Amino acid sequence: MPDFARMSPTKRKTRSPKRAVSDRTVDVDLLLDGTDIATPTASVPATILVTDSPSVRSSFTSKPPRTGMQHPSAPIKVGVLGATGTVGQRFITLLSAHPWFVVDALGASPRSAGKPYRLAVNWKQSTPVPQAVREVVVRECKPEFFAECKIVFSGLDADVAGEIEEAFRAADLAVFSNAKNFRRDPHVPLIVPLVNTSHLAIIPQQQTLFSPPLKSGFIVTNANCSTTGYVIPLAAMERAFGPLEAVMVTTMQAISGAGYPGVASLDIMDNIIPYISGEEEKIEWETLKILGGLTTSEAEDADGNGKTGTGTTTMAFDMHAAHPLRVSASCNRVPVIDGHTECVSVRFARRPPPSPQQVREALAAYTPDAQTLGCPSAPRHAVVVHEEPDRPQPRLDRYYQDGAGVSVGRVRQCQVLDVKFVVLANNVSIGAATSSIINAEYAVLKNVVQL
Amino acid sequence: MPDFARMSPTKRKTRSPKRAVSDRTVDVDLLLDGTDIATPTASVPATILVTDSPSVRSSFTSKPPRTGMQHPSAPIKVGVLGATGTVGQRFITLLSAHPWFVVDALGASPRSAGKPYRLAVNWKQSTPVPQAVREVVVRECKPEFFAECKIVFSGLDADVAGEIEEAFRAADLAVFSNAKNFRRDPHVPLIVPLVNTSHLAIIPQQQTLFSPPLKSGFIVTNANCSTTGYVIPLAAMERAFGPLEAVMVTTMQAISGAGYPGVASLDIMDNIIPYISGEEEKIEWETLKILGGLTTSEAEDADGNGKTGTGTTTMAFDMHAAHPLRVSASCNRVPVIDGHTECVSVRFARRPPPSPQQVREALAAYTPDAQTLGCPSAPRHAVVVHEEPDRPQPRLDRYYQDGAGVSVGRVRQCQVLDVKFVVLANNVSIGAATSSIINAEYAVLKNVVQL
Amino acid sequence: MPDFARMSPTKRKTRSPKRAVSDRTVDVDLLLDGTDIATPTASVPATILVTDSPSVRSSFTSKPPRTGMQHPSAPIKVGVLGATGTVGQRFITLLSAHPWFVVDALGASPRSAGKPYRLAVNWKQSTPVPQAVREVVVRECKPEFFAECKIVFSGLDADVAGEIEEAFRAADLAVFSNAKNFRRDPHVPLIVPLVNTSHLAIIPQQQTLFSPPLKSGFIVTNANCSTTGYVIPLAAMERAFGPLEAVMVTTMQAISGAGYPGVASLDIMDNIIPYISGEEEKIEWETLKILGGLTTSEAEDADGNGKTGTGTTTMAFDMHAAHPLRVSASCNRVPVIDGHTECVSVRFARRPPPSPQQVREALAAYTPDAQTLGCPSAPRHAVVVHEEPDRPQPRLDRYYQDGAGVSVGRVRQCQVLDVKFVVLANNVSIGAATSSIINAEYAVLKNVVQL
Amino acid sequence: MPDFARMSPTKRKTRSPKRAVSDRTVDVDLLLDGTDIATPTASVPATILVTDSPSVRSSFTSKPPRTGMQHPSAPIKVGVLGATGTVGQRFITLLSAHPWFVVDALGASPRSAGKPYRLAVNWKQSTPVPQAVREVVVRECKPEFFAECKIVFSGLDADVAGEIEEAFRAADLAVFSNAKNFRRDPHVPLIVPLVNTSHLAIIPQQQTLFSPPLKSGFIVTNANCSTTGYVIPLAAMERAFGPLEAVMVTTMQAISGAGYPGVASLDIMDNIIPYISGEEEKIEWETLKILGGLTTSEAEDADGNGKTGTGTTTMAFDMHAAHPLRVSASCNRVPVIDGHTECVSVRFARRPPPSPQQVREALAAYTPDAQTLGCPSAPRHAVVVHEEPDRPQPRLDRYYQDGAGVSVGRVRQCQVLDVKFVVLANNVSIGAATSSIINAEYAVLKNVVQL
Repeated sequence: MPDFARMSPTKRKTRSPKRAVSDRTVDVDLLLDGTDIATPTASVPATILVTDSPSVRSSFTSKPPRTGMQHPSAPIKVGVLGATGTVGQRFITLLSAHPWFVVDALGASPRSAGKPYRLAVNWKQSTPVPQAVREVVVRECKPEFFAECKIVFSGLDADVAGEIEEAFRAADLAVFSNAKNFRRDPHVPLIVPLVNTSHLAIIPQQQTLFSPPLKSGFIVTNANCSTTGYVIPLAAMERAFGPLEAVMVTTMQAISGAGYPGVASLDIMDNIIPYISGEEEKIEWETLKILGGLTTSEAEDADGNGKTGTGTTTMAFDMHAAHPLRVSASCNRVPVIDGHTECVSVRFARRPPPSPQQVREALAAYTPDAQTLGCPSAPRHAVVVHEEPDRPQPRLDRYYQDGAGVSVGRVRQCQVLDVKFVVLANNVSIGAATSSIINAEYAVLKNVVQL
Repeated sequence: MPDFARMSPTKRKTRSPKRAVSDRTVDVDLLLDGTDIATPTASVPATILVTDSPSVRSSFTSKPPRTGMQHPSAPIKVGVLGATGTVGQRFITLLSAHPWFVVDALGASPRSAGKPYRLAVNWKQSTPVPQAVREVVVRECKPEFFAECKIVFSGLDADVAGEIEEAFRAADLAVFSNAKNFRRDPHVPLIVPLVNTSHLAIIPQQQTLFSPPLKSGFIVTNANCSTTGYVIPLAAMERAFGPLEAVMVTTMQAISGAGYPGVASLDIMDNIIPYISGEEEKIEWETLKILGGLTTSEAEDADGNGKTGTGTTTMAFDMHAAHPLRVSASCNRVPVIDGHTECVSVRFARRPPPSPQQVREALAAYTPDAQTLGCPSAPRHAVVVHEEPDRPQPRLDRYYQDGAGVSVGRVRQCQVLDVKFVVLANNVSIGAATSSIINAEYAVLKNVVQL
Repeated sequence: MPDFARMSPTKRKTRSPKRAVSDRTVDVDLLLDGTDIATPTASVPATILVTDSPSVRSSFTSKPPRTGMQHPSAPIKVGVLGATGTVGQRFITLLSAHPWFVVDALGASPRSAGKPYRLAVNWKQSTPVPQAVREVVVRECKPEFFAECKIVFSGLDADVAGEIEEAFRAADLAVFSNAKNFRRDPHVPLIVPLVNTSHLAIIPQQQTLFSPPLKSGFIVTNANCSTTGYVIPLAAMERAFGPLEAVMVTTMQAISGAGYPGVASLDIMDNIIPYISGEEEKIEWETLKILGGLTTSEAEDADGNGKTGTGTTTMAFDMHAAHPLRVSASCNRVPVIDGHTECVSVRFARRPPPSPQQVREALAAYTPDAQTLGCPSAPRHAVVVHEEPDRPQPRLDRYYQDGAGVSVGRVRQCQVLDVKFVVLANNVSIGAATSSIINAEYAVLKNVVQL
Repeated sequence: MPDFARMSPTKRKTRSPKRAVSDRTVDVDLLLDGTDIATPTASVPATILVTDSPSVRSSFTSKPPRTGMQHPSAPIKVGVLGATGTVGQRFITLLSAHPWFVVDALGASPRSAGKPYRLAVNWKQSTPVPQAVREVVVRECKPEFFAECKIVFSGLDADVAGEIEEAFRAADLAVFSNAKNFRRDPHVPLIVPLVNTSHLAIIPQQQTLFSPPLKSGFIVTNANCSTTGYVIPLAAMERAFGPLEAVMVTTMQAISGAGYPGVASLDIMDNIIPYISGEEEKIEWETLKILGGLTTSEAEDADGNGKTGTGTTTMAFDMHAAHPLRVSASCNRVPVIDGHTECVSVRFARRPPPSPQQVREALAAYTPDAQTLGCPSAPRHAVVVHEEPDRPQPRLDRYYQDGAGVSVGRVRQCQVLDVKFVVLANNVSIGAATSSIINAEYAVLKNVVQL
């Protein structure tokens, strides 16, 4: 079986024209597995949608679970960048109980470097510092200290993440980042693991930007915590009922989303802050990149002979361009410790729209690829649908499934758009470290990570 | 000057047809003052809109302030029903410093009756029990104990408010109620004092439902606390830019909105409850009654001669029927003590819609009748517009102007509707007792209350 | 090995006089095991202290763990009274994962009786209703519905607990109660399982109060949640350094200690309530019963021949009488969800008193009998001693060891008494249901419960 | 009338020996007014206690209020150092409504210098920036910019306060500081204005330390916020019942006590932090300085002729040495915005101790000099005594009298010491800026400030 990561972009563009014509898309899964893309033809259209659009994604899950997907046979050494920060602590907590990954190196600021982790960190988790890392000596965030690692998880702050992650990728390390720096990069996939793992398909192109091309280095980012929570039910709706046209979301975001020390208690006790700098723009933009597809276009060569099939092919994120989607977000910080609650209202392209009951059923049935494939950190239920009128609630529902899924409740008609509902996502789990880890698991299972 | 309250419905219907035809409305102010409605004609249309539509309301405030409006020359005795409850305590606190009103009688449950107020009440305000009421003996809520009162404020719970308020009205007492029981009554105005005081025009009709007609008894209700907060900026927008077509609102409501003991601390600490029973329906319905107009129609008599002018005339709330308005509300309880924060997005009928800056200016300029007329409890600024990106915030802004106005901030474009913004209203002030008191002040100034 | 529960009170009084004389106490452990109490003599003093005094308790733990203690060979059916309440829900959550106990019957008010548990309960735990009890039909709290149960756990409210627990005991059921009703009963032991399990020795006497004597019915209570938390380190100190003379404690108690709905959010948000009705008296009294010993006195017979050994013997709680202990408590309710934090200062009888470091070591070394014996719900560390200056903190430390131990920090000198420290106890775990369950486990291992 | 501030230390030591012998103290009030200290004698003892001990302080208030005390005839220009900080904002808010003081200059860090105040400050008060200071240009904290000011209030952070306040004093400015830097200085009085204003008597000595002696410059500090709250009732008790022997206090301190940004919300929501760095030591030490007296001792001259009366005299704080007082404090941070609640237990030297009822009466009757003298910011009631069992509570009681007094409740017997009670003090009012302002008012009325 040809590995996805070993395919060249040129090879990958070759595919059955019929399929492409009929639905304007290529089954990403096929692409990832690469089993039936061996028959190039001259008539490949210049643009092929590689997409997470509903119809395509639905087809994934109609296949039987890949029980044969091989789990790694040996422990995989991983590193954590920004290991002393809030997200870093969360990475370490999760990784310390991981079935495949073993923390091998911890990186932090020069201030912490040289100290055993237990002394370098101001530990804020409710479980003690895991035994396995207590005495690990923290290093500076330089690739040479992470040479043993196959994967590096980044919980770095945005002010340093750009340069450091860049350096790690250039050193041929696979970086799974929670930082925002590369989210808008046209070659870096922005992946919510329960939504658009198919976007990993762009990794080979990302590697070829380097000269010589990278062999195993790349960057994958996950999304902003409030984007992550609500795109999961949106993806489930698009898969079942076709594209959305408009989404309004009002968030009530937990203080842990701002890191530590983050929000001053004097600012948030007995209060709401109806503003989070840059957050609304992130949600409005990231939603389009995540729910949109990956477009493959054949660039013309110098002679303008692009259509002959001899030109190079480039992939691009289409930002949901096939069906323009308007997103309007209003973000609020609320005095809740963990768990972002979001009131969402959506309008479907399809008329008449589905009923609330149909939406509930589609949400409950939603099974993303990360589950089908058997990622060990994926939740059992991607979307838990509540029937009680007053759920989900952050304090009661945020730790269910270790916060790896999302909870949806109050699915009902909207007087202005079509359907409205409430979604709760654990911002420090699926909204942050858990997403990076599932992304890495998926990339391992798909051989995108070189072991 | 003929008092509004003494006019018969028949007399009131007579008016200049031209005016009615040209704008389909009658200046409510004229109606209330009754000065120029003396010329009946045969050609009065069967339906006349008495409305708070933008154009009409604007015209009110283009008039000079009625500096000649006479304030009462003697103290007005008032009673408080439900005096030991949360809203009752708030009424008493506000009334104890009122320039016109003097608390004369306090009504509560039989359990409290007979005790001096200070012993009957579980006082929860941050100022002590006002000296003037400490020793007042609490009575049962029976009209005979309130014979001296010209006005009765009701802070009763909904489970008893219906029957008691009914009895007080029947005993010819003017009732200003914070309870929900009569809000949907087609003869009872639902008045947000900074929006639709013109709806007092229906009081005479309410009184004629009794046989013999009531002389001074009537019921006026104020709106649900979250409705109140956000309809004030909506009214300002409609006055400036014409009717709205769609409104989406997500509320983050303070615990004090649920009364005492109200929300259990175990339910709300470190939590959000994304549901308040009946609240979304209230907002969606009350908004239409408040922002809509009062329609006057001439009923046909037994001979079908309705158009001859000899039939009776009835007024009705049109529920914004002239320009259908869709409202979608999502209500949340949040761990904030006082102050409802609401994220609102609106779509105007007019295309192109006003810019955010135009909306800001219109909000800041909004001057409702209650201000113009000189109601002592009206705020100086009905809408305070914030320029800072992170305001309004409940803890910082809820007590400004004693909570009698509302604060609006973050006026900006909406990607789905036209304009979105955040509004903060003090739910225990303008959202409750303060509204009833301004309504009563306005009714006194307009001679709707018989002194 | 003669079972403790099968010994008659008469037999138990017989013991080696020398030992009794020398230290005025009898090793409770011996008594419980009953191995060397076979030699009655005439010279037994009228009063023998069966105590938890430091010296005696220390001797317990110097013995090797009883690895031979037999765990039950079959599941033990248990019932829960007050199953729909806060404590009842906690019992059910804990019991659903218990290695020995199986929930067989659920009792609640007549209002709930007849419904499947999932419908009867307003579930407030952060894990879902355990599968095993979802469809169990709730019964009224009558013994006939619990006939299959060997043990009944009571989470009943105090207003009904007295009568119901009495009835269950009379029906020969073993009742482990979290209610306060029998805590002051001179025949009912008040047991903090990490402190004074030896007080189970009074059960046979409790049973002989009935005629005919009960075979298997009895009542054991656990202590008030704030008493429980702080007596554990006090017991550790007394074991290591001898009796205490004075204790001052200021509590900061979580809202969950007040049950549901309990504390109104309007009362506790951004606030402290420096008063909890009856709580200070409970702490001051219960501490003496728990830390005090069990006195055995031989009652005179009708002829005044008490000293001949032919009279009956009675046991009594000595309320720490051998070394009078003054306790002063100040109780506060604070806006914390779970976990009581207590600032404690103590004075030892022994001069000079131990140093803070000695106290720290004694706390860390403290190993109560429930651990030694292998009670499955006992924590691994009875007292976790923190070295960090700012611990324990409720949010960080309350769930450690599932809340079955306590955390102590800031052990330092007191300028007024001898040593002061901070203790944190999870009020819903070791402070409530977990205590009852460990008590029951201990009673099973000691054959006090008839299987 | 000779001004206190103009008296030389030498002159002040001369006084009537008889009085001094009889009670070992000198009425500080006389000293401050200086009216009857004109008769030097040879037999003045080497050490004279100038004290705030109960008997002396009681005598102050038995005098009629000095209604003749002249209030300043013209506005007094004042400056605020650290004007953009939390305490600075509070100073500005209070001063903007002050009857005597007018803000003339604002000092802050170089970063803020040059900007109008409204732009330099991140305003966190619930009332808007006072109109009078909005456009005032912020200066660096250098004396030359404050030349017009008679008084400077310092809300500086401790890391810069030392040097800056020193410079301002050296420039002959009167500094009233909320910073901790000079609290332990043996020449700087640590004044809680409702307790020990008599300690202003040391100012002339402080000024003579400079060469040439300062004419108008000096530093007065106020106490730590939690010390301030509880020493007020302690002073009232000492005045009425004589010296205390032991005090235990457990504090529950509001987040605003830590300044802004101060406590991270992730650290304090749903939590208690049982530790505030340095706070316990401050309380234990400051209490002694405040409640202790000022000792005057005659230093020997070079010839050892100290007793001849020709040597110089020095004053010193006796740290309550006449009756040693042991203080033990336990400090906690709690999730309350404003208002420190403290559980206090005391032991009196006098046996038998007063009853709780006697203590209640003494607290209610307590009238410190600042009230008697007519300081405009002094509260009407220094100590409000609550009879309700569950008061004081921070949210209900902290704003009474604008937070200038303290509330005491639950006065009851202590099983370990004598009497225990709860005190609530508004840490940002009497616990900070209000104290400095009353101190300044008192110093103006006593002519310690040169106008």
